[in-house]
Amino acid sequence: MIKENKFHPGKKPLHKFPTAGKKLCKLNDKELEEETHELGVRLGELQELIYAESKQKVLIVLQGLDTSGKDGTVKHVFSETNPQGVRVVSFKQPTDIEKRHDYLWRIHQQTPALGEMVIFNRSHYEDYIIPAVHKTLPPKKIERRIKEINHFEDMLLSEGVTLFKFFLHISRKEQAQRIQERLNNPKKHWKFSLSDLNERQFWDQYQKAYDTILKATHHKDRPWDIIPADDKKIRNYEISNILVQRLEKLKPEFPMMDHNVIRKIKSEAAKILRF
Amino acid sequence: MIKENKFHPGKKPLHKFPTAGKKLCKLNDKELEEETHELGVRLGELQELIYAESKQKVLIVLQGLDTSGKDGTVKHVFSETNPQGVRVVSFKQPTDIEKRHDYLWRIHQQTPALGEMVIFNRSHYEDYIIPAVHKTLPPKKIERRIKEINHFEDMLLSEGVTLFKFFLHISRKEQAQRIQERLNNPKKHWKFSLSDLNERQFWDQYQKAYDTILKATHHKDRPWDIIPADDKKIRNYEISNILVQRLEKLKPEFPMMDHNVIRKIKSEAAKILRF
Repeated sequence: MIKENKFHPGKKPLHKFPTAGKKLCKLNDKELEEETHELGVRLGELQELIYAESKQKVLIVLQGLDTSGKDGTVKHVFSETNPQGVRVVSFKQPTDIEKRHDYLWRIHQQTPALGEMVIFNRSHYEDYIIPAVHKTLPPKKIERRIKEINHFEDMLLSEGVTLFKFFLHISRKEQAQRIQERLNNPKKHWKFSLSDLNERQFWDQYQKAYDTILKATHHKDRPWDIIPADDKKIRNYEISNILVQRLEKLKPEFPMMDHNVIRKIKSEAAKILRF
Repeated sequence: MIKENKFHPGKKPLHKFPTAGKKLCKLNDKELEEETHELGVRLGELQELIYAESKQKVLIVLQGLDTSGKDGTVKHVFSETNPQGVRVVSFKQPTDIEKRHDYLWRIHQQTPALGEMVIFNRSHYEDYIIPAVHKTLPPKKIERRIKEINHFEDMLLSEGVTLFKFFLHISRKEQAQRIQERLNNPKKHWKFSLSDLNERQFWDQYQKAYDTILKATHHKDRPWDIIPADDKKIRNYEISNILVQRLEKLKPEFPMMDHNVIRKIKSEAAKILRF
């Protein structure tokens, strides 16, 4: 595993964080896949316990530039979880109705309930990033959202949410290859969007906006993990590993009934279950 | 495979349908598991195509008495699908707010959008079954719901929904064993509910109510399949098989862009993707 806490936002700027990660990881491809599979199985078990226990709320935020692998992460990291208890919410362009509300309105509706594991494929962070990149809001309003997002997340935490935030960090070169692949491979046409090309021209602005927001919303209890995402195997492994390590600490358990209660029920049940 | 169309509600009453199905199936346990796994993989592929294509809406209704295996079906049949694009909705006792609306209000909100596969773990059928069993509504009102449910489902179909309805059919004896197991196995305590014991005492009323509603809401375009559910392997196999067979007929495909459009985009993209 890449050393823990190595990829939290800190003093160095985003572009100093690796996007490849290959050199940092001692496992070869086959070992990576095996380890990721094992982590995936354990993640599935933990998710079942969390669902059964119904005492924890888990929220996993996936952010990253276009083509950074958010969909692939959902597909591969969560392959062993149970669709009952896991909910994926993909935030697209806000609808007309959503636009008439504050930007956290639609987000708040989708936060996890007890026992749930919710994955945000994009999130409220878009509501900072997009205006910051395209200057569609007054600077003060954009700036204020940092504070608002922090307050919102603090509230979620104090109400029992365990929050993961992953930034899928890819290189400019890797993005070009992925967009090209979506154009070249007919089976990937559906993933191509003209806006990916347009937005790519704001690469530097995106890096700057992310650099700011990652630092400003990183907190030890709701950390950002900057995931080297050029290599999909590394990405899946790293995310799986972080999820499993932190979820283990919650020690979810199957809730058991009191011994005496069970005994009483059993004696009453005997007749009903006899025929 | 158990012969197609064998288990649609028809002239014979529910209790004449098998709950075991072992005798009807020529596969042994190992073959069943292998076949079910292969069907599961294909179901995952079909689901990905449906999601990518975004032209179909798929709704899968799971009904059955307590302990009939609705949760297990979700876990095992859909294990190869992608949580992005698949949504499980478990309908519990209606909340106070839900009770203030008509019974289809909360159901309608959860129906699938284009590209989605939605699984209803319990459904609007509870709103017929429960009042019919416990006589909590005037007979005319209960009766009327049959027509309303048919109208509602017809509308969904005409708006592009492919509707599956599975009734998980278990024997009285098997239910007793499953409730006992939930009491005996501490890891299953969380699945035990006192109401399972209470409701079991209305076994005959449940059979009668299901017998009526299954017949009255069975239609060739939105059929009920009565699944022999005493054996979990048979259950998973049968449901997987029916899903795959019918979804294949939809012929979902990756949507492709027009050749000329792609060529034009590529030439424009070249510069953007160069650096």
